[in-house]
Amino acid sequence: MTHEIAVIPGDGIGQEVIPAAVEVLEALDIDFEFVEADAGDAVLEETGEALPQETYDLAASADATLFGAAGDSAADVILPLREAVGSFVNIRPAKAYPGIDAVRPETDLVFLRENTEGVYAGLEDRLTQDVSTLTRVVTESASETLAEFACDYVSDADDHDGFTIVHKANVMRETDGLFRDTVKSVADDRGVDTDEVLMDAFATRVCLEPEQFDVVACPNLAGDVLSDLAAGLVGGLGLLPSANVGPERALFEPVHGTAPDIAGEGIANPAATIISAAMLLEYLGYEDESERVNEAVEVTLEEGPRTADLGGDASTEDVPEAIIERL
Amino acid sequence: MTHEIAVIPGDGIGQEVIPAAVEVLEALDIDFEFVEADAGDAVLEETGEALPQETYDLAASADATLFGAAGDSAADVILPLREAVGSFVNIRPAKAYPGIDAVRPETDLVFLRENTEGVYAGLEDRLTQDVSTLTRVVTESASETLAEFACDYVSDADDHDGFTIVHKANVMRETDGLFRDTVKSVADDRGVDTDEVLMDAFATRVCLEPEQFDVVACPNLAGDVLSDLAAGLVGGLGLLPSANVGPERALFEPVHGTAPDIAGEGIANPAATIISAAMLLEYLGYEDESERVNEAVEVTLEEGPRTADLGGDASTEDVPEAIIERL
Ligand SMILES: CC(C)[C@H](C(=O)O)[C@@H](O)C(=O)O
Ligand SMILES: CC(C)[C@H](C(=O)O)[C@@H](O)C(=O)O
Repeated sequence: MTHEIAVIPGDGIGQEVIPAAVEVLEALDIDFEFVEADAGDAVLEETGEALPQETYDLAASADATLFGAAGDSAADVILPLREAVGSFVNIRPAKAYPGIDAVRPETDLVFLRENTEGVYAGLEDRLTQDVSTLTRVVTESASETLAEFACDYVSDADDHDGFTIVHKANVMRETDGLFRDTVKSVADDRGVDTDEVLMDAFATRVCLEPEQFDVVACPNLAGDVLSDLAAGLVGGLGLLPSANVGPERALFEPVHGTAPDIAGEGIANPAATIISAAMLLEYLGYEDESERVNEAVEVTLEEGPRTADLGGDASTEDVPEAIIERL
Repeated sequence: MTHEIAVIPGDGIGQEVIPAAVEVLEALDIDFEFVEADAGDAVLEETGEALPQETYDLAASADATLFGAAGDSAADVILPLREAVGSFVNIRPAKAYPGIDAVRPETDLVFLRENTEGVYAGLEDRLTQDVSTLTRVVTESASETLAEFACDYVSDADDHDGFTIVHKANVMRETDGLFRDTVKSVADDRGVDTDEVLMDAFATRVCLEPEQFDVVACPNLAGDVLSDLAAGLVGGLGLLPSANVGPERALFEPVHGTAPDIAGEGIANPAATIISAAMLLEYLGYEDESERVNEAVEVTLEEGPRTADLGGDASTEDVPEAIIERL
């Protein structure tokens, strides 16, 4: 069976790290068909559209999508692409790697971020010269879908003991109240343990005692901000992968951006994208291959070759080569 | 001239730390009249109201208010109290103290949090069984007021070089766009330097390079979460003061909560409340006295007596005594 993979490098170092990840995928004994498409600032400049319709359609029909990064037009690219794959959850693991400098090396978290609504449902209006509004939407159905996913996620692996619901229901009583109550009731029905922490308290506590948390389910903006906070605790966005998962397809992307300061120099670290590709493998059912890639990445992070961000002088291309040798 | 100070201890350790701060204020040669009032879980249990009308009225008419903490009813107490004093900005300094364990000891930040709107304007609805909404409000006028305050704040002291605007205008384009544009334009007109950082990027960067930031102006929820994040970086909420400032009056409160685990034992650390009282002194124009209290607190934090949270065995009451001796 052939798997069609949409490949969207985007801007900046997206053009360098995506080919490195594709190289690793190609080295496996799996029948992939890679189809490349454009998105981001460069194609916006050329065509007036940051996300051409062909690219949207490709992501909406491919079995999975690998996306790099986009510049200033990021929101116009990634938000519609998440919709194109029908993504209801953004999975964001944030863990420190051995040998990599981290503010809190004990951090080992997975955020399950609701990926369709909250302030991202963004119905905005400028009512008068003075007043603007945004309608934040929270539905029972989207909260249920996220909760079912979170329950499956912690049940599939042996190393999770329930999950933490993060919200701000003491202020957003109706909307985050609905989120919290719905997620909790699904988990209760499934016999999955949960606890809950207010969003602001979580921000304090994750700095002080990151080892207290494991899997976190939260609304869209909370997931955006708190996973980026966790990224800071593990040493930056450089090594973090992510998956935007829908019912039939999914999109995988490194959490980092286009890194304009080093773009074009061939020295970007492709590790986050290669780890994202490992998430893609797992999603498509290739669990062994996924594990092999993850292990090879970990060995390479520890033993090198290392790119400049990790204190080495390897090129982007050296990394997939070393990983493929270690597969 | 007599200053009427509303004193609202609230629940838990609020009952212990507030008297300690009042003791310090009483030791100064200033004509204060302290008027005490109830709020929080205990009075809710007794009367059915977490914030009795007398308490609201007192805060709305006193020259300044000193508030401790409230338990589960916190939102029902502190949000109306902020309104009672007409507070448009919540000032939240977050700095590490010498000798106190901190994740990032270089952190020295002041958050100027918009204090009237954003998701806190909280017009919520349950439209259908499935759908709930919250109307997030951002006005030009509130953004202007915050911006003027931020400009005054950084201009009054020599040690600030402009401020950072934190927002999420790439997603909340109309509302946070209005906030960002308004704040920037006020600052430009006033000749005050600003830069801007997206809320999620700020969460990463403040962990990695806290020394890059100084004064931060942001919308309400961003200020809530990011100042609590900064609290985590400086070692917890324990030492952080805050001020809710309005045009004619203001309310001062420690950022910590009721600490139910140690409430009633007389071992709570009153430092955050005493630093909040120093902010009250500054607000009322007693800058010398404010500085003297701050310095005495710093010496006491370093040299003791120290309460249990800082590894000592002093009682709550030992702390104001030592501070008063050092004034
Ligand atoms: C680019 C932006 C719209 C996006 C978001 O806020 O979701 C990004 O921050 C992310 O988290 O992938
Ligand atoms: C108690 C709660 C409503 C409050 C807030 O969110 O503003 C608290 O977290 C704070 O920051 O003072």
